[in-house]
Amino acid sequence: MEDFATPGMTKRDLLTLIGRTAGATAMYMAMASLDQAAASTFKGPVKLEGDAKGASVLILGAGVAGLVAALELSKAGYKVQVLEYNNRVGGRSWTLKGGDTYTELGGATQKCEFSEGNYINPGPWRIPHTHYGVMHYCHELGVALEPFQQNNFGAYLHSTKAFGGKPQRYRTIHSDFQGYVGELLGKAVKQNALSDAVTSEDAAILLEALRGWGALDKDMRYVKGRASADRRGWDKDPGGGLTAEPIPSEPLSLSTVLKSGLWRAIGGNVSLDHQQAIFQPVGGMENVAKGFERKVGNLVRLNSKVTKIHQDEKGVTVSYDDTKTGEHLMAQADWCVCTLPLTILSQIEINVSPTLDAAIHAVPYLPGLKVGLEFKRRFWEQDEFIYGGITSTDLPISQISYPSYKYGSRGPGVLLGAYSNGSYAYEFTTLPPEERVARALEWGSQIHPQYKSEFMNGIAVGWHRVPWTQGCFGIWTEESRATHYKNLCQLDGRIVLAGEHASFIGGWQEGGITSSIDAITRLHQRVQAG
Amino acid sequence: MEDFATPGMTKRDLLTLIGRTAGATAMYMAMASLDQAAASTFKGPVKLEGDAKGASVLILGAGVAGLVAALELSKAGYKVQVLEYNNRVGGRSWTLKGGDTYTELGGATQKCEFSEGNYINPGPWRIPHTHYGVMHYCHELGVALEPFQQNNFGAYLHSTKAFGGKPQRYRTIHSDFQGYVGELLGKAVKQNALSDAVTSEDAAILLEALRGWGALDKDMRYVKGRASADRRGWDKDPGGGLTAEPIPSEPLSLSTVLKSGLWRAIGGNVSLDHQQAIFQPVGGMENVAKGFERKVGNLVRLNSKVTKIHQDEKGVTVSYDDTKTGEHLMAQADWCVCTLPLTILSQIEINVSPTLDAAIHAVPYLPGLKVGLEFKRRFWEQDEFIYGGITSTDLPISQISYPSYKYGSRGPGVLLGAYSNGSYAYEFTTLPPEERVARALEWGSQIHPQYKSEFMNGIAVGWHRVPWTQGCFGIWTEESRATHYKNLCQLDGRIVLAGEHASFIGGWQEGGITSSIDAITRLHQRVQAG
Repeated sequence: MEDFATPGMTKRDLLTLIGRTAGATAMYMAMASLDQAAASTFKGPVKLEGDAKGASVLILGAGVAGLVAALELSKAGYKVQVLEYNNRVGGRSWTLKGGDTYTELGGATQKCEFSEGNYINPGPWRIPHTHYGVMHYCHELGVALEPFQQNNFGAYLHSTKAFGGKPQRYRTIHSDFQGYVGELLGKAVKQNALSDAVTSEDAAILLEALRGWGALDKDMRYVKGRASADRRGWDKDPGGGLTAEPIPSEPLSLSTVLKSGLWRAIGGNVSLDHQQAIFQPVGGMENVAKGFERKVGNLVRLNSKVTKIHQDEKGVTVSYDDTKTGEHLMAQADWCVCTLPLTILSQIEINVSPTLDAAIHAVPYLPGLKVGLEFKRRFWEQDEFIYGGITSTDLPISQISYPSYKYGSRGPGVLLGAYSNGSYAYEFTTLPPEERVARALEWGSQIHPQYKSEFMNGIAVGWHRVPWTQGCFGIWTEESRATHYKNLCQLDGRIVLAGEHASFIGGWQEGGITSSIDAITRLHQRVQAG
Repeated sequence: MEDFATPGMTKRDLLTLIGRTAGATAMYMAMASLDQAAASTFKGPVKLEGDAKGASVLILGAGVAGLVAALELSKAGYKVQVLEYNNRVGGRSWTLKGGDTYTELGGATQKCEFSEGNYINPGPWRIPHTHYGVMHYCHELGVALEPFQQNNFGAYLHSTKAFGGKPQRYRTIHSDFQGYVGELLGKAVKQNALSDAVTSEDAAILLEALRGWGALDKDMRYVKGRASADRRGWDKDPGGGLTAEPIPSEPLSLSTVLKSGLWRAIGGNVSLDHQQAIFQPVGGMENVAKGFERKVGNLVRLNSKVTKIHQDEKGVTVSYDDTKTGEHLMAQADWCVCTLPLTILSQIEINVSPTLDAAIHAVPYLPGLKVGLEFKRRFWEQDEFIYGGITSTDLPISQISYPSYKYGSRGPGVLLGAYSNGSYAYEFTTLPPEERVARALEWGSQIHPQYKSEFMNGIAVGWHRVPWTQGCFGIWTEESRATHYKNLCQLDGRIVLAGEHASFIGGWQEGGITSSIDAITRLHQRVQAG
């Protein structure tokens, strides 16, 4: 979800390729060519003015899209009922804590054994400040936010093929790459190699800029010295008193930096979806859903599995099963806002136009896997001074993300030990959960040898085995979007779809929210128009 | 303090110049040529093994250097007393909250009128994760930490001389600068202009790297399109539903970016002292001192102004006045750890060697000013989506820093409305406090027009008027360090100095802590040696 695929992601093959060659973070750098985008059109709470005319709306799915629809439509005077498959609201906005259980497709049940206060968010885990809709509802619903450490210069970049598999600090590669870029461009400018592109007046400014920006010396070289060491780190750190004088470190060579491939993982914080300021809800992403629940929880019927959606000129009838009692039930309303993932909706009988039907079946879903690992202590902080942030690797786990909460605490800690989107995510998902955990542990121990001795327990969610989504989020290509996107979003008789799949912010909660607002606004207009 | 001067800072003239031309943040980029440095030699708690032999130590000053000495020496078995001028511990590690009063040199008294929970730290305000000593003591003393938002792509860069004075988002300038750097270097590489510096094999990798890193298109150009818009922002943001398709924004021209000078303020997060992860104590920097106070507060005598320090072969005698009663008092001990700022110590009679005496008088102190402004609401969040981080400007206020706490709260908010180090800091300091606040308000309103209507109250600390430091922190030049630094740090008879001035991490609490540990380690060795 969300950045299950980071900013963009449209073509599975591309993703797989990138995932294979460079680790998940590399996808940040590939986003340029993809179809989805960041930030948000959300400009403030929707105002559905005018009379709801006593109309009723049945909302399918109590993820953020469904919850926004429930909140805003009920505010506008509609009679609202929400049907939700799970025994909780939130959908993919989900948090696993100690005591929680989760049963996946195939029947395997995992019990989360995390200690008090520890958790993972198997789905969305970040809220960029440019996601104005999520930010708005968090503020309105009293959901406390704290910074998510997206970028950490003290975390690692790791490749099995570089530096003998020894992880490098982000600061080292970032500084050396930027330093050499500055030095090389400075050299080209001084040689007048770019005089067709840069005026001599601008060239003088550019040289001045590159010197500071690249940490270059007075001769415009990126070399061992205070300037570079103050970014990449010192051989002997500065201190106080008599033996305090620092000793600079030697930069890697340009060729070493380039051949390492670790530059692929620089800049995971420069796309709109990952730029600071970026947040997480205090205590887990489920608290966004719980904020909505405080307002509209009474409108939601849990444990309700939709089996059929039928519309006619009078209204919409939805058949559903109570997953606890096995009862077959029906709900009726004048209108229906359907936020079910297309993976699920495409398996349900629904009478809509052929164009919408085709759109429902046109969008494959990204694979994805997250593994949470609990350890006896926060060795990443205590031994390695890594406080939050993400280590990137070309191992199948793709990344290790350190918790952005309870910094410095002495008890057990939970990190995200795998977060895969490419072909490995499929492979991972085929394994029994305990085997996924075991592999994440084995691979991660190449980066943190403490893994083996400090491990306590783990939990693994493979999204194609999640019963209520069967995948992470919809993958649009330019072609499928051109053919199907508008058809997917159109009000079809008495039914309108909403969710991240009906947005240009795919995989993020903001897509679900903006999609929902757009859908209910059009639905309201239709009701107004009579 | 701390980064009152950001990472480096040695020459006042240079500082002034930089402060004048480019705003405080520009100093990040100037650090290369300066003398001080980041990170820390701290490698774990000091172990003073062996018998203290019943020796007593008088510690002057209860800032972090003095408090570390008190904690570690008392643990090692020394009889410790601390004399502190203020009626609180912490020294420059100081927080101003509603209800606090502060009287500066000249007699002006300000009462802080901030609402409950709001504060500013007039001195140090950030704790880099590389400052292992501060981090260690925060963990040991139970001081809760939260992220300080050093970098915010949504904050502004502002110049009175560019864009008609209209502030630009950090993301715009950052993206465009990096994009053009990538495009230009790519062009030079493709023209073989750098074939003497880059092998053809490396050149191919470099081109691949630059494309992703610079958000370039397939032809290696930084142009209007998805790639650049996903960093710099969209003309029409992406959203959900039918009208969701985003429209990219047009990059600034290379010449516009360069001539704006705003590139000077890019990269305030790349020096070791400012790299993420970077923290602040929850509730204010005073909580670091309060952590120490819980352990050694009983050893500290407050309201004690040192007037004379005398040593002979038997011990050290310190004369001091009780600032509440006016009593003249004396304290004696076998040894003395003096952490008084050199500005203060140089005004006190002390019998030390001529070389130490010369060192004490050799170090000028940086000017500095901080202004805290309280507003009726957090308009920077509500109107402008700026959550924490720093806006940089060439106005005398140098920067505006938004609070890294209570995000999204609806009550009054306090921001740091000025943080000046250059010549303006002197000028500011000469004004009456209410005039400093008025000017900060006037200047800041050029960036945030809401200032005028939302203003509630303010407080201003000019460090050269702070009675107990008379300046921010010591400024070493290469020359003064070569001549005086070791003399300053040497145990001189029974007296040893400690504090940020006796470190290579000047202006940061870490300098005080590492200096203190080095000083007491040597003192302990002397005691052991008999």
